[in-house]
Amino acid sequence: MHDHRSYNQLKVKSIGIDTYKEHAIYMRIDCEICNSEGFTSLTRLQVSANGQTIVATLMAVLSNLVRHDEAGLSPEAMKKLGVREGDIINIHHLKPVRSFAYVRGKMYDKFFLEDQLMQIIQDVAKGQYSNIELAAFVTACAGDNLSLPEITALTRAMVSAGSSLSWSSPVVLDKHSVGGLPGNRTSPIVVSIVAAAGFTIPKTSSRSITSPAGTADTMEVITRVDLGIESIKNVVYNTGGCLAWGGAMELSPADDILIAVEKALDIESEGQLVASVLSKKAAAGSTHVVIDMPVGSTAKVRSHDDAKRLKQYFHEVGESIGLNVDTYISDGSQPVGVGIGPALEARDVLSVLKNETEAPADLKHKSAALAGLMLEMVNYSEKGKGKADALQFIENGKAYEKFKTICLAQGAFREPPLAQYQFDVSSTKAGVITEINNRNLAKVAKLAGAPKSPAAGIEFFAPIGKKVNAGDLLFRIHSESTGEMAYSKEYLASIEDLITIQ
Amino acid sequence: MHDHRSYNQLKVKSIGIDTYKEHAIYMRIDCEICNSEGFTSLTRLQVSANGQTIVATLMAVLSNLVRHDEAGLSPEAMKKLGVREGDIINIHHLKPVRSFAYVRGKMYDKFFLEDQLMQIIQDVAKGQYSNIELAAFVTACAGDNLSLPEITALTRAMVSAGSSLSWSSPVVLDKHSVGGLPGNRTSPIVVSIVAAAGFTIPKTSSRSITSPAGTADTMEVITRVDLGIESIKNVVYNTGGCLAWGGAMELSPADDILIAVEKALDIESEGQLVASVLSKKAAAGSTHVVIDMPVGSTAKVRSHDDAKRLKQYFHEVGESIGLNVDTYISDGSQPVGVGIGPALEARDVLSVLKNETEAPADLKHKSAALAGLMLEMVNYSEKGKGKADALQFIENGKAYEKFKTICLAQGAFREPPLAQYQFDVSSTKAGVITEINNRNLAKVAKLAGAPKSPAAGIEFFAPIGKKVNAGDLLFRIHSESTGEMAYSKEYLASIEDLITIQ
Repeated sequence: MHDHRSYNQLKVKSIGIDTYKEHAIYMRIDCEICNSEGFTSLTRLQVSANGQTIVATLMAVLSNLVRHDEAGLSPEAMKKLGVREGDIINIHHLKPVRSFAYVRGKMYDKFFLEDQLMQIIQDVAKGQYSNIELAAFVTACAGDNLSLPEITALTRAMVSAGSSLSWSSPVVLDKHSVGGLPGNRTSPIVVSIVAAAGFTIPKTSSRSITSPAGTADTMEVITRVDLGIESIKNVVYNTGGCLAWGGAMELSPADDILIAVEKALDIESEGQLVASVLSKKAAAGSTHVVIDMPVGSTAKVRSHDDAKRLKQYFHEVGESIGLNVDTYISDGSQPVGVGIGPALEARDVLSVLKNETEAPADLKHKSAALAGLMLEMVNYSEKGKGKADALQFIENGKAYEKFKTICLAQGAFREPPLAQYQFDVSSTKAGVITEINNRNLAKVAKLAGAPKSPAAGIEFFAPIGKKVNAGDLLFRIHSESTGEMAYSKEYLASIEDLITIQ
Repeated sequence: MHDHRSYNQLKVKSIGIDTYKEHAIYMRIDCEICNSEGFTSLTRLQVSANGQTIVATLMAVLSNLVRHDEAGLSPEAMKKLGVREGDIINIHHLKPVRSFAYVRGKMYDKFFLEDQLMQIIQDVAKGQYSNIELAAFVTACAGDNLSLPEITALTRAMVSAGSSLSWSSPVVLDKHSVGGLPGNRTSPIVVSIVAAAGFTIPKTSSRSITSPAGTADTMEVITRVDLGIESIKNVVYNTGGCLAWGGAMELSPADDILIAVEKALDIESEGQLVASVLSKKAAAGSTHVVIDMPVGSTAKVRSHDDAKRLKQYFHEVGESIGLNVDTYISDGSQPVGVGIGPALEARDVLSVLKNETEAPADLKHKSAALAGLMLEMVNYSEKGKGKADALQFIENGKAYEKFKTICLAQGAFREPPLAQYQFDVSSTKAGVITEINNRNLAKVAKLAGAPKSPAAGIEFFAPIGKKVNAGDLLFRIHSESTGEMAYSKEYLASIEDLITIQ
């Protein structure tokens, strides 16, 4: 029964299955180890080799996908362990994660102590929590279950579980938008204005996960965004700003893990949201942060009461951890600008920065309002004068100059492409636009190919309040392939409530 | 870009991976569907063919495990859909499960209405909930978060989500033990006594999931337990009792799903426990139920206060749904009987039923107490006389006669086997046994091969309070292979707190 391996060892086989944040290990359910240890599917295992250890969830194999002396691992798990096919790995039952006892305590309505949240978040960041344990933690924190001291402690714990940046400037600005409205691409404009005014604003952004474009996707149309931490520092040192992708920085790794579970459960936990946003800003070395908070029935924040409470949380937690936070409550009922999708949004951004007459006025004014609030926070502008000052930077061309400088420092400045295929969608009746389903609109853009095909997406010409006649253009779909255009139109034909005309 | 398939179709490939209760679908992350729909790992999908639909979680494939026009499915998923390799399946994004909105409401401290729990449990039983949604539901119900009316409604919902049995007898007895103590094999003895007294007691049992033996494993050493529902009815009609495996009956399918998640989270939710036990008993057509509740530091119920509250819940919920429930609170600090493992426990059971002088007295008296409580509930015995009446059935041989009759009706009556290898573990010092770690003891038995090798396990000779000298036998490991014996001894050498001698 014994061979050269010892009791808890198997040979690695490479299995190209990506199980997202949770590693998986594929073992024959009738192998010696599963038999003797009583392992079944979903058992949490500790897998080690070369002094490295990962936690993995067992997937029971019933076929010849792996042999009895083999264990399948994903490429990412193999990389973390530093093993190749045929290498020997050690497999043990995972000892219960000790900090999960505090999560159980929370279910019995206990308060989290700061040190307990620290341990939980450290374990989450290390990948010790299974997806269902993460779901239990997120659920136990949801509703109004976290007090302000707990949200503050959670924020601190998230900061200390990741890496942090520091800057030589005493004032470092940043912004964040709560909940993605299609086309809400204010960041490139805000950064250009604030940096043009002489301030440090090292803005990093995410790529789209479920939306037609993230700021990083939009900026990638114009310049390089995939910069290492040293390059980002250089760009900021030379230009005051940056518009890079932040994904490589691991500023709040626990938060990235929790967000995936919250998204899957569609839970809008206020405490988690505040901790998530502010921990990333604190870790990025910011001192002054403006929160863009769109309010609307298909936005993340649905009512002005919710917005008011959330605003208070942001301000109080920010104060506790030494961040100056201000909030800009805006209209979340419809897209901002005309373009939806990386290149089309980039066109809007460039049009505003170039101060073109046909530039989308809503995007221009919202960006100026956000930048103006920042200029007031740092006493560059008098109270109530910030927006006018910000508009000045757009109109005198200094913001556009700064934008070009930042792009060139990041490695390129190029014109956005135009998609090969267009399809116009016109109104079938006369009336006034009264409502827009932002979620369905985003899906049309995604099916057309955004953000994978940067030029794909939508040009949107039907803002709320606009009068239209039958035959008037409502929006134009852009696509790089006839197949994707067909998918987009197929979906369009299947829905009814995209744009309400009355 | 288009071929003969339409936009959301792929060909089935058989993948022998068992993902337990949650189906998985393996798709190339760069296939058309994932690309256009924005599917990523863990996206919940609706997969349909032949008018059947299942819900599956996407596992993103990066290798050539499947082709771009293929989707991998487990054998169980293929069976449910009625498809073979090469068949076409339709894939859609799962619409959010509507009843999950009530779970979100619970997070905000709302009460569940009866109809809401009904919808949730129906959806759970249909496999619509992902593991993380199940974890959120279980967490939202944990602690003291369920009121008595909610527990009652949950119990009713669980009953109506499964199939139910009915019997011609107006009085139908059953028992349940909360939390597995090693060796606590009272059911075969209790059923034999109660059936010998002329009552109907159609006891079905589970196989071991994580313990060295379930009652079904123990009974399988002596007779057939894998009976269909019609055979079970015949056995009960002819003998009054049965001792069969209940797994094929699907009495409370939602509960089976929830239990797996609770086990993984190690949450002891009182509301869920009460609903779980009583829903299965009600579905099985019982009218009178006795709950065996061992209390001890390594048992499920840890204190007498907990036991008291739990007992009250059992009684009140039982009353609401028309079940007579009584509770027997017993010692949960150490194993019951001598044997741990299917055949060794079967030997204890037979020894008690044969009324042998060397039969384990604790097992005999506990079984008689439980049976006696039942006899009092149904007014066969006077209050306080039940246990004496039960012992009478053991001593006059009628319980053993009934046991043999039941076994023969189930298809066999055979002697338990003895394992090929034994290893004696003796005390290294003199003193008194003060504490036993039941969990570690169970693990030694499992590593020795129980319950897969029916003869494997432990004979335990070191009850609490016993005086021992250095060299005295504490327990004997039984194993069917030298390899498993080696694993068991290897583990034994690595732990310290198995038996405390002072």
